[in-house]
Amino acid sequence: MSSAVNTVRERVAAARNAAQQLGAIDGVTRAEALRAIAGALRDNAAAIHRAHETDLTRAAEENLAAPLLKRLRFDEAKLNQAIVGVESVAALPDPVGAELLRRELDTGLILTKQTSPIGVVAMIFESRPDALVQIASLALKSGNAIVLKGGSEALESNRILADVIATAGTGAGIPAGWLQLIETRSDVTELLALDDLVDLMIPRGSNEFVRYIMDNTRIPVLGHADGICHVFLDATADPRIASDVTVDAKTQYVAVCNSVETLLVHADSAAALLPDVAAALAERGVQLRGCQRTREVLPEIEAATEEDWRAEYLDLILAVKVVDSLEAAVTHINTYGSGHTDAIVTTDSGAAERFLSAVDSASVIWNASTRFADGFRYGLGAEVGISTAKIHARGPVGVEGLLSYKWILRGNGHTVAPYSDGKRQFTHRDLSPE
Amino acid sequence: MSSAVNTVRERVAAARNAAQQLGAIDGVTRAEALRAIAGALRDNAAAIHRAHETDLTRAAEENLAAPLLKRLRFDEAKLNQAIVGVESVAALPDPVGAELLRRELDTGLILTKQTSPIGVVAMIFESRPDALVQIASLALKSGNAIVLKGGSEALESNRILADVIATAGTGAGIPAGWLQLIETRSDVTELLALDDLVDLMIPRGSNEFVRYIMDNTRIPVLGHADGICHVFLDATADPRIASDVTVDAKTQYVAVCNSVETLLVHADSAAALLPDVAAALAERGVQLRGCQRTREVLPEIEAATEEDWRAEYLDLILAVKVVDSLEAAVTHINTYGSGHTDAIVTTDSGAAERFLSAVDSASVIWNASTRFADGFRYGLGAEVGISTAKIHARGPVGVEGLLSYKWILRGNGHTVAPYSDGKRQFTHRDLSPE
Repeated sequence: MSSAVNTVRERVAAARNAAQQLGAIDGVTRAEALRAIAGALRDNAAAIHRAHETDLTRAAEENLAAPLLKRLRFDEAKLNQAIVGVESVAALPDPVGAELLRRELDTGLILTKQTSPIGVVAMIFESRPDALVQIASLALKSGNAIVLKGGSEALESNRILADVIATAGTGAGIPAGWLQLIETRSDVTELLALDDLVDLMIPRGSNEFVRYIMDNTRIPVLGHADGICHVFLDATADPRIASDVTVDAKTQYVAVCNSVETLLVHADSAAALLPDVAAALAERGVQLRGCQRTREVLPEIEAATEEDWRAEYLDLILAVKVVDSLEAAVTHINTYGSGHTDAIVTTDSGAAERFLSAVDSASVIWNASTRFADGFRYGLGAEVGISTAKIHARGPVGVEGLLSYKWILRGNGHTVAPYSDGKRQFTHRDLSPE
Repeated sequence: MSSAVNTVRERVAAARNAAQQLGAIDGVTRAEALRAIAGALRDNAAAIHRAHETDLTRAAEENLAAPLLKRLRFDEAKLNQAIVGVESVAALPDPVGAELLRRELDTGLILTKQTSPIGVVAMIFESRPDALVQIASLALKSGNAIVLKGGSEALESNRILADVIATAGTGAGIPAGWLQLIETRSDVTELLALDDLVDLMIPRGSNEFVRYIMDNTRIPVLGHADGICHVFLDATADPRIASDVTVDAKTQYVAVCNSVETLLVHADSAAALLPDVAAALAERGVQLRGCQRTREVLPEIEAATEEDWRAEYLDLILAVKVVDSLEAAVTHINTYGSGHTDAIVTTDSGAAERFLSAVDSASVIWNASTRFADGFRYGLGAEVGISTAKIHARGPVGVEGLLSYKWILRGNGHTVAPYSDGKRQFTHRDLSPE
């Protein structure tokens, strides 16, 4: 770690150099390095806590806001949890080199397509020192070099964690420079310009922050700025499911990207469904804002404006709109939504399938809560992020989001000329991946 | 087609609008539309030829260079070939909605991951009217809207082809606006700024052109600027294979991205291999430029400079460098190469595997020519492009490069709360995709 003396470009170039060597490091060595990192974190727990105390003292002096303080907190339990996390990542099967395809092009000429690291991944996150440990271990597991930028509140914690992790990794055979920590906002500005060195950027934080990253770099970004999610109650929605799903999607955890922000209701079921759904939401303290037709059924609620259809409240507020058809619901979602997660409640399976194929979102859901759209719930293991982009990775992204693939062709002297001359023909026979 | 009256933003927005509706159009309708397009191209053959004659006449008046004239040529045989191409794309299985994963999250709560269109794809190509027909049909097959910009030399041909294809598609039920043609360089400049409307950009053309596109847009680019490919002759290389592969990789077709530009030779085999390889290359008219150690074996050849290691000659010129080890070859390739295609010739399978995993290129090849790195030869069907990026698609890219995926969750009223409260557990049981 010589982060104090080198420019951001030099440090990221060192990560790139390490990434080029990481392709030659096998999965056994990477797993051993992860176990060495877990051991080093355990051995350095006292020093890590001292560093963290410095952050906490400064945070107290600076009257850091309570939510930030909570995110900053990295006590003994959290460190232990992070160490267990590193060990469980070490124990996962090697994600690099998995065969995706195996094809005989001709006798003795075998093509395979297999997973490979992306190269250099940069992650920018807020406070949370545990995020540093998690993403560093996932990056190493998948053979990538990593550039990290944490919150300034966690400066001392991040420094020692990065130092311990980088050193333990290098000591276990990982190329020097594989983990780089950058620290200031001006470092981030420099980083965003390094599209020749960084392959993937993963920002975690507020909408404004992620939007800023997306708008200010040519580096591909894995993430999502907005989560404007919808639940559509179709004409044939089961009343209990309509109420259960809407309440869960709105209130189970209100401040997250996959909570519902707009409820759409088919005109044919509005009068029957809305009173009960509204009552169930009211019990949880949800305030409704409705279109004119919603207010004909629920005259007591506030009127919604155009802005409400674009709002990500992240709060106990729900916009409600009556639509004339499933198609109108789809159009509304594809127009105002953020392509994150949208659900339909219906007993009509044909309608459900039309909705699931027509809604252009990362996750589309039938008769279940939008809150399921999450890497852990989807069974992806560690969640690298949730992407609303359609390139590379979409929706909840596990470690596969840190992987690319390469084509490997093995022959015994094959040349193209005889195929080009028509003297030989390709067989193009698919074989089972090994 | 109202391309004459609308701004580029309006036209691309119309494509985006069509893309949002395309998700609801099933594969049968898309295939029928492709057959309708093939029929319409056949019915309009005379008018297409008249438009093409106009282009040819203007090209003659403007003394268009011979290679451009050759690319522009779109005679009856080429039109028929293009129509057969559309019909064969129509006959392919529907690439949209293919299940990539099926997982039970809990009883009655089934997650699937399936292929979906990307949305709006923009393709910029040189002359070649046949490229317009091919990419339009691949885009429609995969449920995408398409924005096309062809060479100005083919203006009249492109206009009528785009008009016939767009109209026939719309007539067969594809949403209006699904195909847009833009025509001028200033249109392209506007297009490059529309990263809010375009999901993927595919430029085909010269290195400078592709580099220009990559450097001037935030839209993800599928393509490659350079093809600086290597062949490495290892210490144990079979002499016949060394010679055959090098000659094929250099001379089978010299002006393409997957031809070899630098030959690396292990110091232990340089004296034994280089004379025969050089003689075989000389027979094909290849001029060599060597490092000092190469010139100790081949004193008659020109000296290579640092620039030669970065050169994409696309010509009968080959740079030659002696290296001390396989690792030095890998380092050279990862430093000077373009991540396109690199090959090793060796009889040592352990060395081969070290090379294949350590070289960070889209295609890595053992004992076969770099010229195999191609969508047709890899058996991908139609080739959308060759990508040197590691995000989304890498190497030769077939129709899957035009696809994203979405997550579909089907339940019967499931909510997250009981899992969050610990009252229910996920089963996360993988099922066979259907």
